[in-house]
This record gives sequence, C-alpha cells and structure tokens, in this order.
Amino acid sequence: MPFEYRLKRRVQFYETDMAGIVHFSWFFRYLEEAEHAMWREAGLSIADGSGIGWPRVEASFEFHRPLRFGDEFDVHLRIVGKDARTIRYEGIVSKDGARVATGKIAVKCVSTKPGEPMKSIDIPAAIDALLQVAPGD
Amino acid sequence: MPFEYRLKRRVQFYETDMAGIVHFSWFFRYLEEAEHAMWREAGLSIADGSGIGWPRVEASFEFHRPLRFGDEFDVHLRIVGKDARTIRYEGIVSKDGARVATGKIAVKCVSTKPGEPMKSIDIPAAIDALLQVAPGD
Amino acid sequence: MPFEYRLKRRVQFYETDMAGIVHFSWFFRYLEEAEHAMWREAGLSIADGSGIGWPRVEASFEFHRPLRFGDEFDVHLRIVGKDARTIRYEGIVSKDGARVATGKIAVKCVSTKPGEPMKSIDIPAAIDALLQVAPGD
Amino acid sequence: MPFEYRLKRRVQFYETDMAGIVHFSWFFRYLEEAEHAMWREAGLSIADGSGIGWPRVEASFEFHRPLRFGDEFDVHLRIVGKDARTIRYEGIVSKDGARVATGKIAVKCVSTKPGEPMKSIDIPAAIDALLQVAPGD
Repeated sequence: MPFEYRLKRRVQFYETDMAGIVHFSWFFRYLEEAEHAMWREAGLSIADGSGIGWPRVEASFEFHRPLRFGDEFDVHLRIVGKDARTIRYEGIVSKDGARVATGKIAVKCVSTKPGEPMKSIDIPAAIDALLQVAPGD
Repeated sequence: MPFEYRLKRRVQFYETDMAGIVHFSWFFRYLEEAEHAMWREAGLSIADGSGIGWPRVEASFEFHRPLRFGDEFDVHLRIVGKDARTIRYEGIVSKDGARVATGKIAVKCVSTKPGEPMKSIDIPAAIDALLQVAPGD
Repeated sequence: MPFEYRLKRRVQFYETDMAGIVHFSWFFRYLEEAEHAMWREAGLSIADGSGIGWPRVEASFEFHRPLRFGDEFDVHLRIVGKDARTIRYEGIVSKDGARVATGKIAVKCVSTKPGEPMKSIDIPAAIDALLQVAPGD
Repeated sequence: MPFEYRLKRRVQFYETDMAGIVHFSWFFRYLEEAEHAMWREAGLSIADGSGIGWPRVEASFEFHRPLRFGDEFDVHLRIVGKDARTIRYEGIVSKDGARVATGKIAVKCVSTKPGEPMKSIDIPAAIDALLQVAPGD
C-alpha cells in the first residue's frame, strides 16, 4: 500500500522564464506528476472514466532555492492526511540533497457528470484501501 | 458573417523563457485565442457540449522577430479555406505594425462520444453558414 | 499610489484540462497577471532590466468553485503586507460575484547578476514609495 | 556524432484539455524536449551561457491521432538538414508503433547580448562538428 513516491525529473527549457529560473507555477505541476505516478504504481488512475474526479481544494508552496534549465531534481511525495473525502499530500523538491521547495496539496473526491456541477462524495473503498497515510505523519 | 478577427494581447511573464523571449509554443495558443474569439463574436462556441469537436490537423508558424515581456501585439486571423469537413485559418502576429510571425492552422470537424474515438463529420450547416472564407483568399 | 488592482479575464481553452475545468496551476498565473498589471499601472515593471528580480517565496490558493472554458472572471488583488524586502499580495478570484478561489503570494526583492546566485536586498526606495499596503489590511 | 534521438515520454494530466486529449501546443514542446536531450547526449547545451541562442524560425506539425492522459509515446527526432546558420529537425511522434503526429522545426544560430537584438551568426565549429544530418536525409 503506497504512501509515498519519489519522482526524478529534469527541468525543461519551456519551464523556465525570463528570470532564468523555473516559473513557480511549474512546481504545482511537478507535485501533481508525482501524485499521479504514485497512483499508477498503486494500480489506480486519477482519471479512470468512472465519473469520479479529484479537484484540488488547497495548494501551497514555499520556495527556498531556484531551479534552472537542465537541473535534475527529486520530488518526495507523501500522503500526510486522509479523511472520508479528502487526501492531503506533502512534497519536498530537492536538488543534490538540498531542499528547493516544499509543497502541499489537498484533493477532494467528487462525482462528475457531464453538464452537472461536481459533487463531493466519500472516497470509494477500493481506492481508500490502496492509499495510506505515511508512517510518522 | 465573420471571416476575420483582430485580437489585441499583451505578453505575460510566464510566456517568456530563459532566452528572454516568448517561447515559440505560445504563438499557437495566441492563434487559438483569436480563433475562439472570432467564434464567440459569431455567436458560436468551439466547445458547446453538443458532441462536436474541432481538433487541429495541421499547425505551422514562421517566426520573424521575437516578442518580449510586456509587448503589446496583434493577431490578425482570417479564414483562408473551407471544405465540407475542414476550416483553414491564417494568422499574422505583428507588433507596432511590424510582422512578428505568420501562422496557419487547419481544424477538422469531428463527433466526440465519451469512450469512443473521434470521427470526422461534415461541418453542421448552422456553423458553416456563419463562417466564411475571407475575401481575396 | 496603488494598493489594489482589478483584472478582468476570460478562461482560454488551453487553460482547461480533461476534467473540463481550469487546471489549478493557472490560478497562480492569473494572480501574477494581476500583480504585473498593477505594477504597470504604477509606472513600474517587474522586469525592467535593472538587475532586480522578484521571485516568489510563498504561493498558496484555496479553491471553492471551478472555472470553465469561456468563463469571465475577476481577480481582485491587494497588497496585504510589506516589509523591507518582501511584498505580500492576496487575490480573490470571483465569477458573477461568487468567490471562486482565494490566493496569496509573497515575493522577495533580489539582485540578479548573470552567473551569480540571486541575493536578497532591500526594496529600492523608488519602488517602495509607489506600492502601499491596502487600507484595512 | 549524433543525428537522431528517441525520447520516451508519458502524457501528463496538465497537458490535456477539456476535449480529453493533449492540447496540440504540447507537441512542439515534446519535439523540443527530444532536441535538448539529443544535444545533452552529444555533450552540448542549447543554453550554455556563452551568448549563443537557438530561436526557432519555423515549426510545424501534422496531427494524425490524439494522445490521452497516461499514454506512453515515443518521439523519434532526426536532423534532416543543416547549413551554415540553420539546423532542421523532423520528429515522428508514435504510440504503440502507430504514428500520432509528424513535426518539423528549423532553428537558427544567433548571438545574444542583454539589451541588444539577436543577430544571426554561423554555427560555431565545435557544435557543427558534433551534429550531423541523419543518413538517408
């Protein structure tokens, strides 16, 4: 039962801005990449066509150091909280062992039907059983 | 019946890359913005929930000059060709009257059903009647 | 002396994801657009080539409702805090008067030289004089 | 001496749009990723801080099939042309052996100085020696 994931990634050219560093909006995408890779490893998909979605209800980052074009970095994602309808993740972005940024995301389980508003629902038992809070959190 | 559209736009910070200029991938989005604005002006929507989609089948750009953060620019979009299933656009991006880039996009009309592959169909008459090829093209 | 800015904006097609809503990473860009527009209105530029930069040190959003393709929305940005080296913004994203999301960004003033790490410095007096904390914050 | 590169990649969630497929602007970024990976393999960097840049002068794609979230795909990039100041690439995007899209990019060698316009120059001999046109092209 997965509770963490370690993503290795390299900064792409189009992720940089004219300041010569990765634009901060990309870090939220890096975290999401790690989240989806963790789900895939658990045999799950964040978008499996079953009418369930996982919109973000909170997302935050603290930035300590910049990343630059070509940099190799790690995202260490952990599930740090879970209740009936919400999963909370924390992700630490680091480069050569030094912390670059720390992010948090909370996602909610919703049912989605075309033409109807999304509606908050309980996390299905089959998914809930496969994702657990990281020990120590 | 619209056959052209003039979009005014300003370069955003996150559209630049570490070379200090707009990343070339953004020009394709600028053209699409103009296309969708033209449809809106005609009372149409590129995504109206009716099970019809408009995927791009060809897209190209020639780049003459760079755009930089804060630059104001124009996109002059014209419909330059149309047949039963395809619409062809050309868009000229300019800044202070000087040509920056020239783009072309061809889009195809398809029917879309969840879980099924997209299928090429004829452009619905109601849409076809509202969009025409620009005079002189 | 500006302390707030109201940006009107429309959701672009390329800002949506397969869930049919704006991808959450875009809200951070919307806030930045409002920030840069406020600076422009004050006669300032966030990137004026003078060797000063404004990297984000914190960024967060709470999401209440989704935005969809074509939606018109507002970003009401306010300066909510300022010290010698940091500016804090809060931005409320709303649509038809209903709150969609609430974001916060903290930016730091740094000196930037090619090939050297960014270094935290005091906000130049000329800039500091033009930006003030919104009354009531 | 490299003349081709094969990139393996997976579609990320944020690369999809509300039509449920990868937004076409991303294919241009996929091609660029392969280009930069090829340069890296050759011991080169597209952005080495030496005052040389490689802006795109032409970019085009033909799209045959869509890509969807989670899809694994390949980009087979080849150098198909080269003269004193320009390199031409072709990239074939495929999935499970079926062709998804075919792209072409032409890049020009320029000198870049802060505050000055980019100026077209000859490709430096050290770079020219390391990149060659693919046999048969």
